Amino acid sequence: MEKIRIGIVGYGNIGRGVELAVARNEDMELKAVFTRRKPASVKLHTEGVAVKHMDELLSMKDEVDVLVLCGGSATDLPVMGPKIAANFNTIDSFDTHARIPEYFGNVDKAAKSGGKIGIISVGWDPGMFSLNRLYGEAILPQGSTYTFWGKGVSQGHSDAIRRVEGVKNGIQYTVPIEAAVERVRSGSEPDLTTREKHLRECYVVPEEGADLQAIEKAIKTMPNYFDEYETTVTFITEEELKANHSKMPHGGFVIRSGETGEDGNQHIIEYSLKLNSNPEFTASVLICYARAAYRLAKAGECGARTVFDIAPSLLSAKTPEELRAGLL
Amino acid sequence: MEKIRIGIVGYGNIGRGVELAVARNEDMELKAVFTRRKPASVKLHTEGVAVKHMDELLSMKDEVDVLVLCGGSATDLPVMGPKIAANFNTIDSFDTHARIPEYFGNVDKAAKSGGKIGIISVGWDPGMFSLNRLYGEAILPQGSTYTFWGKGVSQGHSDAIRRVEGVKNGIQYTVPIEAAVERVRSGSEPDLTTREKHLRECYVVPEEGADLQAIEKAIKTMPNYFDEYETTVTFITEEELKANHSKMPHGGFVIRSGETGEDGNQHIIEYSLKLNSNPEFTASVLICYARAAYRLAKAGECGARTVFDIAPSLLSAKTPEELRAGLL
Repeated sequence: MEKIRIGIVGYGNIGRGVELAVARNEDMELKAVFTRRKPASVKLHTEGVAVKHMDELLSMKDEVDVLVLCGGSATDLPVMGPKIAANFNTIDSFDTHARIPEYFGNVDKAAKSGGKIGIISVGWDPGMFSLNRLYGEAILPQGSTYTFWGKGVSQGHSDAIRRVEGVKNGIQYTVPIEAAVERVRSGSEPDLTTREKHLRECYVVPEEGADLQAIEKAIKTMPNYFDEYETTVTFITEEELKANHSKMPHGGFVIRSGETGEDGNQHIIEYSLKLNSNPEFTASVLICYARAAYRLAKAGECGARTVFDIAPSLLSAKTPEELRAGLL
Repeated sequence: MEKIRIGIVGYGNIGRGVELAVARNEDMELKAVFTRRKPASVKLHTEGVAVKHMDELLSMKDEVDVLVLCGGSATDLPVMGPKIAANFNTIDSFDTHARIPEYFGNVDKAAKSGGKIGIISVGWDPGMFSLNRLYGEAILPQGSTYTFWGKGVSQGHSDAIRRVEGVKNGIQYTVPIEAAVERVRSGSEPDLTTREKHLRECYVVPEEGADLQAIEKAIKTMPNYFDEYETTVTFITEEELKANHSKMPHGGFVIRSGETGEDGNQHIIEYSLKLNSNPEFTASVLICYARAAYRLAKAGECGARTVFDIAPSLLSAKTPEELRAGLL
């Protein structure tokens, strides 16, 4: 079997997740990892895979079928995505929702110029959750869609905590409020405020001698991040942080509640994820869509795509015949 | 806006559901209902829609964009499906899992001969549950998939009860066993026997003077239908049956439990449905895929398809731009 040759750009949590996901898919092989660091300083899990500097990307053009872009959405991807999409089939997890239309346009233009496929915003949200919002709304056009996140670590909110004066380290969990989830599951289609849907649990390691009350107040009143939420602040030691908060779990729910017929028969569609490693799961989704990108490119297609544009069968290593006989 | 012109073949529970679903989608209109009964004897919910005999189908060829075939899978669809697919774009809910490959082949050949699209086996199982089995397995290739059905009425098992001597009427509910669902949700990937996954609740109206013990024994030991399950039999009156068991609720779960990475991080993906009207929900899914069939045919495609082959964006009345901006 000819394997799909995968390249990784950026070797952080997601990049490492992609490396591990490739190892779990027999129709793929990892060809190279590209980094902005000194290549010699990067140690992979996989033996025999080249680590190269970003500047060498183009030299590998004929040896990689799909590049998985594992840079950040704030500054890396907006520049890197379109540039690379002109020369490689790409997958990324661009997740700045408000800038998706603009980013899609830029990747589309570049990918078309080079005859490549670029699938953007892949993962679980955006990604699998987006798909379930679409499927739910299409099936039940009269209804309401609810997305709950967590319990899981929010990187952005954890960063915000660590910028507070007197804070040495910290982590923030987004927690869906069970009572709100139950109201949604009942089919009553409630209007829920931000405060009613999620609460924010902060675990904070203070600097020695810091003013704990001032820290707590600074966090709880922080605009955009915490002021609209019920927030709890728990002070812990650095050792406790390492021992109890070093995993990266996450998850959540997409619930569509709607009605059909003349009598308004109620239906609830719920999709839920319980993930022990957010980056490894995201990477596993990215790798499925790399398979789809490879197949679309082979079929002569080009341009930008999202999860909405990809027929499910393209994600599976099985043949259409096997899928119909075994999973339909 | 030019509306998608829908036709319905067969006016039973699903056919009525399709009629009601069309009314809830603004980009569609119901053009005609075809029946094997006397057309004058069929009364629709919608005014101004033609009821015609099946023999007149071809005369409407230019007035219908997509026909939704609402016949049964045992004897109707295997004959009717391929025959109609040669002249119309079709959607059906063919659900005899073992015969899907053969049926797909027959519809494919006919649809290609006429330049039409035929999407088969659409609904929730096969349908949305199949999609979730595929997505789950593609994302987590090392893992186990579990499908639970219910609580809901099984038509086949209800029919089997009614054939037992001394039974006047009856209904059967398939009920997922909560303890099994919880074991699966824990991520332990248990091996579950048929008996451990579902139980069967029977509500039976006996003939006057019938031998109740004999009825109970005949049901509980019936091969294929009940002998492999924990089965309960409750005797009720015809009035109780009408009052408490005339709705058609259903639902169930598809759960994928799998692991990623070197440490075997566990993940649980769960898709669940809680449906107050099985036929109306099935019809709502059929109608989404009618939209997809219409678009594929407009794009010049032909042949048989399943839900696995349909890009999600084709199901939504929204434009790709609206979907990216609003749901991604």
